[in-house]
This record gives sequence, C-alpha cells and structure tokens, in this order.
Amino acid sequence: MTAKLRLAVAGVGNNISALFQGAQLYAKLAAQGVPESEFPGIKRARIGGLGVSDIEFVAAFDLHPNKVGKPFAEAVLAEPNNYPRLEVDLPDPKFEVTAGLVEADADPESEAFRRIVTELRESDAEVLLYSLPTGLQWAADAYAKAALEAKVAFVNCTPEIVARSPEMLTAYESAGVPLVGDDLASHFGTSVVHRALLGLIAERGLTLASSYQLNFGGNEDFRNLRDHGASKRDSKINALAQDNISPDKIEVIPSAGYIGHLKDHKVAVLNIEGLGWAGTPISLDLKLQVQDSSNAAGVIIDLIRVAAASRRAELPGFPVAAVRVLKSPAGGHPSYTPDMVEEGFRKLEAADVATGR
Amino acid sequence: MTAKLRLAVAGVGNNISALFQGAQLYAKLAAQGVPESEFPGIKRARIGGLGVSDIEFVAAFDLHPNKVGKPFAEAVLAEPNNYPRLEVDLPDPKFEVTAGLVEADADPESEAFRRIVTELRESDAEVLLYSLPTGLQWAADAYAKAALEAKVAFVNCTPEIVARSPEMLTAYESAGVPLVGDDLASHFGTSVVHRALLGLIAERGLTLASSYQLNFGGNEDFRNLRDHGASKRDSKINALAQDNISPDKIEVIPSAGYIGHLKDHKVAVLNIEGLGWAGTPISLDLKLQVQDSSNAAGVIIDLIRVAAASRRAELPGFPVAAVRVLKSPAGGHPSYTPDMVEEGFRKLEAADVATGR
Amino acid sequence: MTAKLRLAVAGVGNNISALFQGAQLYAKLAAQGVPESEFPGIKRARIGGLGVSDIEFVAAFDLHPNKVGKPFAEAVLAEPNNYPRLEVDLPDPKFEVTAGLVEADADPESEAFRRIVTELRESDAEVLLYSLPTGLQWAADAYAKAALEAKVAFVNCTPEIVARSPEMLTAYESAGVPLVGDDLASHFGTSVVHRALLGLIAERGLTLASSYQLNFGGNEDFRNLRDHGASKRDSKINALAQDNISPDKIEVIPSAGYIGHLKDHKVAVLNIEGLGWAGTPISLDLKLQVQDSSNAAGVIIDLIRVAAASRRAELPGFPVAAVRVLKSPAGGHPSYTPDMVEEGFRKLEAADVATGR
Amino acid sequence: MTAKLRLAVAGVGNNISALFQGAQLYAKLAAQGVPESEFPGIKRARIGGLGVSDIEFVAAFDLHPNKVGKPFAEAVLAEPNNYPRLEVDLPDPKFEVTAGLVEADADPESEAFRRIVTELRESDAEVLLYSLPTGLQWAADAYAKAALEAKVAFVNCTPEIVARSPEMLTAYESAGVPLVGDDLASHFGTSVVHRALLGLIAERGLTLASSYQLNFGGNEDFRNLRDHGASKRDSKINALAQDNISPDKIEVIPSAGYIGHLKDHKVAVLNIEGLGWAGTPISLDLKLQVQDSSNAAGVIIDLIRVAAASRRAELPGFPVAAVRVLKSPAGGHPSYTPDMVEEGFRKLEAADVATGR
Repeated sequence: MTAKLRLAVAGVGNNISALFQGAQLYAKLAAQGVPESEFPGIKRARIGGLGVSDIEFVAAFDLHPNKVGKPFAEAVLAEPNNYPRLEVDLPDPKFEVTAGLVEADADPESEAFRRIVTELRESDAEVLLYSLPTGLQWAADAYAKAALEAKVAFVNCTPEIVARSPEMLTAYESAGVPLVGDDLASHFGTSVVHRALLGLIAERGLTLASSYQLNFGGNEDFRNLRDHGASKRDSKINALAQDNISPDKIEVIPSAGYIGHLKDHKVAVLNIEGLGWAGTPISLDLKLQVQDSSNAAGVIIDLIRVAAASRRAELPGFPVAAVRVLKSPAGGHPSYTPDMVEEGFRKLEAADVATGR
Repeated sequence: MTAKLRLAVAGVGNNISALFQGAQLYAKLAAQGVPESEFPGIKRARIGGLGVSDIEFVAAFDLHPNKVGKPFAEAVLAEPNNYPRLEVDLPDPKFEVTAGLVEADADPESEAFRRIVTELRESDAEVLLYSLPTGLQWAADAYAKAALEAKVAFVNCTPEIVARSPEMLTAYESAGVPLVGDDLASHFGTSVVHRALLGLIAERGLTLASSYQLNFGGNEDFRNLRDHGASKRDSKINALAQDNISPDKIEVIPSAGYIGHLKDHKVAVLNIEGLGWAGTPISLDLKLQVQDSSNAAGVIIDLIRVAAASRRAELPGFPVAAVRVLKSPAGGHPSYTPDMVEEGFRKLEAADVATGR
Repeated sequence: MTAKLRLAVAGVGNNISALFQGAQLYAKLAAQGVPESEFPGIKRARIGGLGVSDIEFVAAFDLHPNKVGKPFAEAVLAEPNNYPRLEVDLPDPKFEVTAGLVEADADPESEAFRRIVTELRESDAEVLLYSLPTGLQWAADAYAKAALEAKVAFVNCTPEIVARSPEMLTAYESAGVPLVGDDLASHFGTSVVHRALLGLIAERGLTLASSYQLNFGGNEDFRNLRDHGASKRDSKINALAQDNISPDKIEVIPSAGYIGHLKDHKVAVLNIEGLGWAGTPISLDLKLQVQDSSNAAGVIIDLIRVAAASRRAELPGFPVAAVRVLKSPAGGHPSYTPDMVEEGFRKLEAADVATGR
Repeated sequence: MTAKLRLAVAGVGNNISALFQGAQLYAKLAAQGVPESEFPGIKRARIGGLGVSDIEFVAAFDLHPNKVGKPFAEAVLAEPNNYPRLEVDLPDPKFEVTAGLVEADADPESEAFRRIVTELRESDAEVLLYSLPTGLQWAADAYAKAALEAKVAFVNCTPEIVARSPEMLTAYESAGVPLVGDDLASHFGTSVVHRALLGLIAERGLTLASSYQLNFGGNEDFRNLRDHGASKRDSKINALAQDNISPDKIEVIPSAGYIGHLKDHKVAVLNIEGLGWAGTPISLDLKLQVQDSSNAAGVIIDLIRVAAASRRAELPGFPVAAVRVLKSPAGGHPSYTPDMVEEGFRKLEAADVATGR
C-alpha cells in the first residue's frame, strides 16, 4: 500500500480548505463503495500510486490572526475562508498553524526562516504547497529556498517566478529535489472556455467583431483584484489571442466586482460578437458559475501528487507530467509534446513506491 | 482572369437568397477597395482561383407558386423566404425559375426529368447545388442522376445519401464528374459549439452531470422540425458524444418552437452542468444567435467552388478539399488526415484555369 | 388550538408531493425555533387561524398503477412523480389511495361515484383539492359534484370551468359549501414576470418590437404540452396583452421540450426587444428557473386554507380572499377591489375556530 | 402652429447628441408620413403643444477642446462622444459652442458668468438643460443662478441638488421661472427593472435570498464610475429596497468595467435568488442592453417640453408634470398623486400657445 503524501502548506486559504475537505469527501465515497474511476471531477485516479485521498497534512504557515496558533482543522475553516463546509467528517491532524514569513524574514539566516526549515524537516513533509495571494515574489522566493534546504519538493500555484527562474531550477536539480510551477491552470476557468470559443470562431472562418469577459465573486481575490487588476487584465487578454483573433478586439475585467454573498463562487459573463457570410452577425453570450477554490484544488491535487511521486522516484527538477495543468511551466509550453507528457506520467507510475520517507 | 462559376440550383430558399445577395455584397466591398483577405466571414478568399463573388446563377428549379415562372431575381426574394434584404444592388440574371421535379417525375425517362437535363446542358451549368428541404431522398437521387447525365458537378447540402452511396460515387467517377456531399456542416452551428464545450469538460477532467440544447427560429425549418425532429434529435445527440461524455446525459431539441418574428434568425440556448473537485458544481449557460441561412451560405460558397474547380481540373468523384465543411463526407471523416485535405486544396490551386466551359 | 385542515385530494402528483413534504418541512423549522413569520416562501403565516403545517391528509384518489391501493405516504413519492425528496421525516397518514373516477363513472349514480362520496364523508374531509392533469372537464365536473354532495369544500387548481359555472356556483351557495376556483396563479410563474416586464415597457413609453417566451422542464406536464400546447399558447399570449402591448408581437411556447433530467424543475427563457428614443433598440433576455410543483404548492396552501376556513365559518360559495392567487376567479378579476380582498381575509380571521368538524 | 422650443445646453455630451439627432429622425419619420402617435419610443407625442421635433438649439457651453469654438453641429459629434450617427441629415444651427464655467467662475460677478447670462438672453433661450458629468454641485448651482437671472427655465438632469434646494426653488418661484429637477429617471434603466422584479418577489410572497446587479459600458460614465462608484452604489441599493426586500441582501456595481468597444451601449446583468414553498429555490438571470444616451434623451425630451410649456404658460417653480421622469423631484415622490400629475399635464395643454418668446 502506498504511503500517504505528507503535505506542508504556505497559506491556509480557501484552496487548502477545498483540498482538505475534498480529500475526505473522496475517502467517504470510497468507503461507500464508489470506485475511484467514478469519482466526480477527477481526471486521474492515481498518480505514482497516490489516490486523491492519500494526503496527510503535516505543517502549515500563515499570518492571519484567525489562523496562527490554531489547530489546523480549525484554522482551515476560519474566516475570511468561505469555501462551503462539505458534508463529511473531518480529521484532526493534531498540529497547529505556525507564523508564516514576513518580508523582513526573507533572509535565510533569519530566525523565522530557520524555524520554517526546521518544521519542514521535523514534520517529514514531502511537498510544500505555496498558495499565498498573488504578487508576493519575495515570499515565493523565500519559501522555495526553505523547501530546497529541507529537501522538500516545492509546488508554486501562483504567477510568481520560481520554476521559470533558471537559477532556482538548477539549484533544485543539483539538490535532487523536484520543483513544480509556475501558476496553476484552473480546472475549468473562464480563460480556457473563452479561448476555446474564440478559437472556434477563427477555425470556422468567421471574423471576430468584439468580445468581452467579466469575472466577479465573493472571496478575497475579487476584493483585491478590483483595484489591482490591470496586469492580470493584460495577461488574460494576451492568453486569448491566437491566429486571426486580435487582442485589441477583446476586453477582460478580472474583477468586475466583489459581491460578498457569492462567497467562494465565481461568476463570469462573456460575450462574443462575430461576422459570418455577408457580414451578418453572430452573437454568443455565456454565463459560467464555478466554485472558485474547487477549480484550484482540482488541479492542485495533480500538482502535489506529481511532486511527491517525483521525489519518491528521485526525479529532481521540473517534472514534465505537470505541464498540462500549469499556465507557465518551466521551459514554456512549446517545449513539450503530448508524447513527452505521457512519458512523464509513465515514469511516475514506474516509480510507484510504498513510502514517502 | 478566372471565368465565373456557372451555378444551377435545385431549391430557391433562404440559403440561395443568402448566397445570391452575399456574393454581390462582397463585390461591392471589393469595389470599395476592401482587400479580399479582409472580407468578413470568409475563410478562403480563393479556391481554384475562384473568389466569393465569382458566381453566375444560370438555372433554378423550384415548386413553390411564388417562384415557378418568375424571374430568378424576383423569386429569390419571394415569400416564404425571409432572409434579410442586404444593402446592395442585385443583378438580374435574366432567366426564370422552372418547375422542379415531383416524386412522380423521378424516373429518368419522364418528361420533367428530360427537361431538367436539357436545362442543365443548355445553361452551360458547371455545378448543380441541391438544397431542398431535408427528407426527400427520392429528390436528391433524381437531381443527382440528372446532373450526372448532364456532366454537371453535384453538391448535396442535405443529410440525404448521395456521395455516401457507393453506386452513385462510382457512377460519377466513371463519368469524370465531381460529386460533393453529404450534408453541410454549418459555419458556426450550435452543435460545433456544444461539442467543443463538452469536449473541454472531458479534457479538463470534470464530470458531466447533464446538458441540454434548444434551438428555435422563424424560418420554415423550425416549423417543420417542431413536429418531425425525432431523428434529427438522435443524430444531434450522437454527434455530441465523445470520450467521457455519455449521450444519455444530453438532451437536444432541434426545434423548440417556431417564432415567426425571428424570421431567418436562429437562437439556441444550451446548458451544461458539471461536477468538479469534491463534486462541487460548475454551471454554464449559453445563448447563441445566428443568421441561419448565412450559416449555410458561408459553407456552400466553399462547396460549390471546390466542385467547380474540381470539374475544371478534370478531377472526378469526391474532392477531399470539401471534407472539413461536410457532416458526412464520402468515406467518412476518419478516412481523411489534415495533410490529405491540404493536398486536396493544393490540387485545385494547381488546376486554376481561366474558363469553366 | 386550531384543528388541522382535513384534506382529500383528487390526483396524487408532484403538487401533492410538494404540499405533503413541504408542510412537514415547515413543522420541522417551527420545531427548530424558527418563527412562522420567517418561514421562507410564505406570504401569510395564518389564514383563518390555520398555519402552513396544519394539514392532515385523509383521502386520495388516483388512477396510476403505482399509486392505487398503495399507502398514501408511499404513493406520493412513486414515479412518475419526481419532486425532490426534501430532508424531512414524513408521517404515515395510514390510508390508501383509492381508484379515481374514469369518464364512464362520471354519472352520480355510478358505483365509483357513490364510493367517492362515501369516502369523502367517512374521512371527515373538509376540502377536496382537485389537481388532475389539465383538460379533463368531465372529471372536474364529477369531483365537484361529489364534493358538493358530501358537503366538502372544493378547490379547483386547473383551467377547467367549475367556479366560473353559474349553475355550479349557485348549487354550492345553496348547499352552504365553499367553492374555490378556477386555475391557480403560480407563485412565481413565467407569465407574471413576463407581464410585469411588458407592462414596464409600456408604462415607460417604449415601443414593443417583439417578444418571446419558451418554457421547458422534465415533468409530465412538459411531455403532454409539447404536442397539445396550442390552446395554452393562446391563453398565455392573451394574458400578456395590455395597453400598448399588442399580442401579435408576442410568441409563447408553453412546452419547448421535455428534458427528463430537469425532473420537476421548470426553465423559462424570455426575450423582449423594444425601441426607445430615436428608435434605438433595447434588448432584454431573462432565464428563470423554478421548482415547478413548489410554484403550485406555494399557492395551493392558501387556496385550501381559504376553503377550509370559509367552511368552518359557514361562508358558502366563492370566497373573495382567494382572488389574488387564481387566474380565473368566479366573477372575473375586475369584479374585485383590493379592499374587497382584504375584507375577505378579515372575515376568515374573525371566523377562526378550533375545529373543522 | 406652435413655435419651436429654443434650447440652450450646458454640456455637449452623448445625451445632447442623442437629443439633437433623434429630434431630426422623428422629423424625417413625420415627413415620410408616420403619424406622431406611432413614433417609436415616445410616450407623449405632444406636451403643451410641443412635438418631439420642435426643438431649436440656440446656445451651448462646454469645456472640452474638441468642442469649444466649434460649430454646434460639429461639436455634438466630436469625440469622446460616441453615440451612434443616426441615418438622418442634420441641420446646422449656425452657432458655436462657447466656453463653459470652471469652478473659479462660479461667482455671479465673474466675467465668464456674465457672458453666460448674456448668451442666454441674446439667444432668446427658453430652457437651459444642465447635463454635465455627475458630481459638480458648484456647476449645477452656478448654471441654475445664471438661468434664473436670464429668466430661462432650468432642467437639472443630474443628482446634484437644485430643485430640492428650498432657497433655489423659492427664488425661481419669485422670479416667475420654472425649475425642473432633480436627476432624470432613465427611460428604461436597470434600476427600474430590478426594482420591479424584486417587488414581484415580495408581492408574491417569496423570500429574497440574494441579488446582484452589474452595469458596464463604453462611454465616459463607465470609466469615471469604475473608481468613484461607492456613493452611487449605496443610492442604487437603497432605491431597490422595499417592503420585505432588505438592502443587505443586494449588491450593485454601478460600473463593473469600461469596455471601449461597447461605446454608448450599456449592458447590465442582474441575478435574483429567491426561496419559494418549502424553501426550494427560484433563480432569475437577466441581461439588459440599452443605448445609454437614448435612455436619457427619451426622458429629457419630456423634461424640456414641460419646462418650456410651463414658461410659456407663466407657471413658475416646479411643474408637477415632470414628477414621473425624475428620481428626486422637488418635494419628493410621496407628495404627488397620479391625479396631481395628470392635472399638471392638463394645465400645460391648456396653456398651449404659439410662441415661446
């Protein structure tokens, strides 16, 4: 039997609540006799032998007063987290959330940094999952260095540059530690839907007249992005551009508004106006509603299993198996063919081992 | 300079109105200096040297009293046709619509059949475009035989079996005449959008919970289909099924209603309910509005140019270049690779000749 | 304490499932300490002293093999009923559903008719709720006569003519029995929303260009109406017409399709196109989703309480208090002012008595 | 024949473009034989004898470099104005836009202020229409004082306090000049639709669970409001509250985003979640698209005709006829009954005179 994946987390937000509760929910389904091939919302039942419930949380770092010093099982449900409380009993991993790093602690010689390294080692963590709010490059760097020193695989969910940094990647490779990143591609995000529909317009030979996309919701992201969404807007628009689809006909509003009662639900509305034969119009309106943090957790579950399996198989550096669920993989998307990705998964299967120690 | 494509049509409905008016509209754009590479809604400016305005209507067959015996330019705008009147002056091709075949005339020895063959020959038609209402297999057969005898290329826009009939295909090949069919794939149809979105659900690893699609509009198709849509429903549902997308979770209503004031506009609403991580729901609602007959004409323009160019190049039988815009190409979609299709177009380019006689 | 309302039902469909389960749910909320003024979806906590949980089912008639001869508590959940199973324990009223009338039994001398009268009497029913499928005028007549003979108040949920029949109304008045009908106005139906929006268009001085409404769902109504919706269409369109809103610009499709997986959910899409200043367009698209049978039960709860309270207060004939939740009240809507309706309710309050026997 | 309404405008934005072009469009319709009772988007063909085309622009004040010093007919179409260019020939009123007031000119003794008064007098203006961007209380005050001094009726389209100021109203009454304000109620705005639907929820006895409304568009308003919408949000939410509809369940985003390619189109999406019988959900999603400035002009046309007719009839102060198309009429909505409003219109009809001098 495969040993559970020992997971440490930097940031105890909604994504971690989704991951923690969801893993238990799948365990409950399994206990009810549902075969794992029929688990809802799961693309790969096993990666390197690890199922979606095979996670043991062993350490957690955060700065919010509702979380620091609290038992993990309590902190993960504390406000401002507002992921729904799933109908499942939750375990109590019997450890407390400890204080995360502040910018002044970024130096590896700082007391706080030393404590993080020690906790990672003493908890026998296999993977450190980094999911702090977007924009803290110094924090991504510091946690990546701490994980490297503790020889714990690192997963970067955010757009900060970690796996794309040649120096960092080389350091992980030299140390024999896996490094997964950067920036998770949502399970079913607005961008992937919008891009697919714009692609259809171009492929079928219609002309794009205009398009817009607005996103809104009730978690902290939408509050933050409302005022600081300019760079996210540009990167989202660029991600939609493709052959015959010019970015100057597209507008994206990353946060059209913070609407508290939506809680962790995200809503997107998008419109595409096109021209067909004789310039006659086609018009497409779409509304998409998702559970925002499930959209992240459904991908995180693959990233951390790839990271842990790579570590167990002693495959250091960037694991190709992670490419499809990252927005900015080390090396860039064009470097990887579908065959390479499949080969990446096969290596992890071959490496299936019974323990993560 | 390439000679115009000499086109005969069986059925003078909205699709022909869209084709006739649209070709003129593009001529007007060209006269205004718009380069053909910027024509809205056009995927290929030239096929076998033929531009989208290079069409000359030379013969037309229909049964409706508002059309038979009327000048083509008048018949094509007569009720129940309700394609919008585009803002462009229309030419007057100076021929009259003549009576189409009824089922009793299907025999090649019948007087009516002989007249059709004669008209096709005397009008120097290069292509006969078959676009009668769906469901008249005898009519598709009869017109295909008439075109064959007159050595005119045949294009079948409908689901009737013509190019998929091995006997018919062989007969065309032996006679040195091109045969294009069956069933045009709409320029931007509900099915292609629905299929793409269901495919995304599966590809991303979410679970389909349920989906529906309803179509409605104000042209004759929606009146007919309201009561006779059962077989169309089944074929549409089957066309949506794919890996991990089970047809029994999908419902399609080909005609949810005839709504006269929509005229030739088609509206579709579709919904997809999926399950993501931890079984939490995702929900997608889409409304699509198109000009129904432009959606056909935008594809017919390619089918007839492929047919004419093949005839000019003396390439008999089924032209591979037509594969991408047909629902049921001769031989079936799996028989053709992208490379084969590109090669099909190259052959037509190479064959670019100045005359269609 | 007010005695429970003793209810007999003709037809054990989704509406009765909604009523039976819902009444228990509110009892559960009350037991949890929720004050009845805060019950969700309830306009009047008490009518004639009766609360929304004060219902005791005492007799039921149906023809479906899954229901006849079965204990009521089982029959009410049996297919094709597909109202959701609410999270509440259900009581077992300890009586069986008996065979309803067929057309051949419509004569008051028939054995079946005599049995119905006897059951109504022996069960001490106060109210007979008639909710068979639309279109069975003979059945509405027969059950109304049986209730009259048994001196049980009658509630007609359907468009059949019962309370609008002067003969029937006079007979009830003479016998001292209340008669409530005809045709319940849904709690939050598409028509009421559509009518309100069209009214706004007119009131604000815009011009209606066109409008459509499509309804679809997964219960038996949508299967039946798909093919037999013509008369319903006409009455729905007429109900939307008002000053400056011409019915010939409106199309309504009562059943755009039966979509099984929607079960008892009803979905409506509606569109309004208008013209404002300088003829520039306004466009409104709306999607409405409801639990179809809750939409009926939320109004039935008022109709049966009005009926029972009127009977207890010995107020025969048509009770004015029912006017607002009926589509076609006896006498017609214009006969009643808001003051008359309020006075109707006051009479019932005054008549609040402790027993229904 | 009634003399034309001589109109001066403070602010030459999209609203003025809509008014100027639209008035001509209706004149064109009349010339084509369309009776004024069939003009699209017009509630009252005549007010005080004035038709919707009976407007003569005589003076205009603005600060934008594209407008000051330009002939009115040119300035009204200049950027950033982006109201569509209607298909109608426009007259050339042969006057130039002159410089509007800046805050330093607010003193009635300032040279600029004196010039405004002189222009109002020399142009024989009957009405000064104030439609500068929201938020400039000093400007509203200054223009109102200038109009008062010139004895020109004043119409305030904005939320600034003018007609609600007892001092200002008394001054107008004493001087015998009409004063119309404050804040126009859009012809068909999101608020009126949202309020009507929430009202239906309450009236039918359902429980509001939550609701949101987002607005977006491509004119300057949406750029400004994106960052400064907080006070507008609060006033809009308060305007939606009513019996049984609590504002704390409603969120409104006045500008969800500036989307340039929408130009003067405004799009609103709104959602209402309610609870019906047994707490089962109802869900309503709506998308509304309007021509933003037509939505204003369709109401301005009534406000200015009421103002001019009142002046001609020598009825000073606030004219009751304007109540229905103002958000904050002098005295407040509750002060006026429908009968009083009708009487207000009758007075203007009675006063119908042939000249505005």
